[in-house]
Amino acid sequence: MRLADLATPALVADAALLDANLRAMSAALPGARLRPHVKAHKSTALAKRQAALGHRAFTCATIREMEGLAAAGLGDDLLLANEVLDTRRLGALDARVTVAVDSEATIEAARLGGVREVLIDVNVGLPRCGCAPEAAGRLAELARKRGLGVRGVMGYEGHLMGVADRAKRAGATSEAMALLERAHADVGGDVVSAGGTGTYDTNRVATEIQAGSYALMDTAYAKLGLPFQQALFLLGTVISASPAFAVADVGLKALGMDHGNPAIDGSKVWFCSDEHVTFSSDAPVRVGERVRVWPAHVDPTVAYHERIHLVQGDEVVGELPVDLRGW
Amino acid sequence: MRLADLATPALVADAALLDANLRAMSAALPGARLRPHVKAHKSTALAKRQAALGHRAFTCATIREMEGLAAAGLGDDLLLANEVLDTRRLGALDARVTVAVDSEATIEAARLGGVREVLIDVNVGLPRCGCAPEAAGRLAELARKRGLGVRGVMGYEGHLMGVADRAKRAGATSEAMALLERAHADVGGDVVSAGGTGTYDTNRVATEIQAGSYALMDTAYAKLGLPFQQALFLLGTVISASPAFAVADVGLKALGMDHGNPAIDGSKVWFCSDEHVTFSSDAPVRVGERVRVWPAHVDPTVAYHERIHLVQGDEVVGELPVDLRGW
Repeated sequence: MRLADLATPALVADAALLDANLRAMSAALPGARLRPHVKAHKSTALAKRQAALGHRAFTCATIREMEGLAAAGLGDDLLLANEVLDTRRLGALDARVTVAVDSEATIEAARLGGVREVLIDVNVGLPRCGCAPEAAGRLAELARKRGLGVRGVMGYEGHLMGVADRAKRAGATSEAMALLERAHADVGGDVVSAGGTGTYDTNRVATEIQAGSYALMDTAYAKLGLPFQQALFLLGTVISASPAFAVADVGLKALGMDHGNPAIDGSKVWFCSDEHVTFSSDAPVRVGERVRVWPAHVDPTVAYHERIHLVQGDEVVGELPVDLRGW
Repeated sequence: MRLADLATPALVADAALLDANLRAMSAALPGARLRPHVKAHKSTALAKRQAALGHRAFTCATIREMEGLAAAGLGDDLLLANEVLDTRRLGALDARVTVAVDSEATIEAARLGGVREVLIDVNVGLPRCGCAPEAAGRLAELARKRGLGVRGVMGYEGHLMGVADRAKRAGATSEAMALLERAHADVGGDVVSAGGTGTYDTNRVATEIQAGSYALMDTAYAKLGLPFQQALFLLGTVISASPAFAVADVGLKALGMDHGNPAIDGSKVWFCSDEHVTFSSDAPVRVGERVRVWPAHVDPTVAYHERIHLVQGDEVVGELPVDLRGW
């Protein structure tokens, strides 16, 4: 099948660019130095490619992601890098399961659900989950008292992923990681889990980096000048054209919109509707023409789709089912 | 099952409010005066409720929505209010199928795919699909020459749905509909299809209103003071809390974000991450507490979910499968 034969809108990844991204990250962070985050791609098929490159430990954001990886035979070492109150499904998994905790309530929940290992989640500056660094030691002690294995700490410097200047990003990451180091000194354990695509090479403290977006990328990460290329796009069809603007069939239900509008090469995107993107172009646009729409944020974009079509040039060579959606 | 027993995040509709919304709209626009748009709820189960109230003709935005309604026995009169280039799946449906056209290319596509009836789609001010009003007559003539039945015109005044002042909204709608009337005079046919939840009672020209959001509503439409209440919310669990803020498990993959952040009663929403909403609250927030998160835009929110749970008070009384997702 050719790219032109796909029904639109279609989520498509360039197989060569995806492969290059996977290899570039594996070269920088071999083996256990990378704990790929599956939330960005939500695909066990893509996770298997990461595992084949030597990364056997994974990061998840939802219980369904954990269940899906375990069922796919990728359960060597699964980290739910998120707090959960009902952990029964986690406790039932045939996999090594570690869950983030940041409070007495989440420690108690882990114990009640049959989870055996935890990381103490530390707030390193992003106002989201994570305990205060000075509280980490006390929580670790509590967790151990409750019979849980405490493997170490995690702390996600998500507020720094988009800092454009590399030196500033590196400096701010060091400051954030100093908080995590302080907590780690109190907590103990082998694991210091942190980082993401934006700080994969500037985070010098983490023993493992939780990057996910690097595999497929988006326009937000593309601005950082990282050695990963935008492999993912939406293929659309121009369904209407006027002298001032054109409309393609890629809309709000095909695109995560929290980072703003997508991009179309040589065009200015005006706005998106449920099933449309309105844009104006330097060159004349013809009804029926195909366009590539570049998403601003990979994670919530992929979560709208059932599959990622893989292409080599104009040839469709396979697909990656997006089988880890939902909760 | 109780509301408190649902795994979170969960998409939930208050059954009584949903029912009241359906009845209020049916009272205002009985029978064929309303052509419910299913893109907002993507659920054949909910469409069946609309049909039971007398609305047997539906509006769709995608081919899959058309297929799903036809398969559910709701194919009396299905309008795809959108342009498509590959109409073969539409031509194969066991249903009365009408499709919007706004160009020679879309007319030719309708004919080639075996579609028999069309509406001429007219641009009434929203820069999206639709021909210029003065081109509508020529396109209707062309469509008839190609053997297509031309049922009339459609023109969506989507740019006016959010105008806060009712009188201004009504005035602007009249101006937009004057363009559609002009086109209709040239095109002929019985159908003048237009409107939405925001203009359901101020659009005096349309023979049928394409409203969809009224059934479930969202915070954007709630601002207009319409006689429809917010029936839809996300149920979340507070998974982390600090003195300054709290975090619930309802994030970017559970919420359409193009209209901005969701709302939480008595709280200020700071931002959303993939699986989190960070907020600060007037009252202390406890880990494990449940919160209701009100989406800003119903359509792309529902499209992330497999089902809508129905509740009466705190009792879960059923569910509406969201079975029309994808394309």
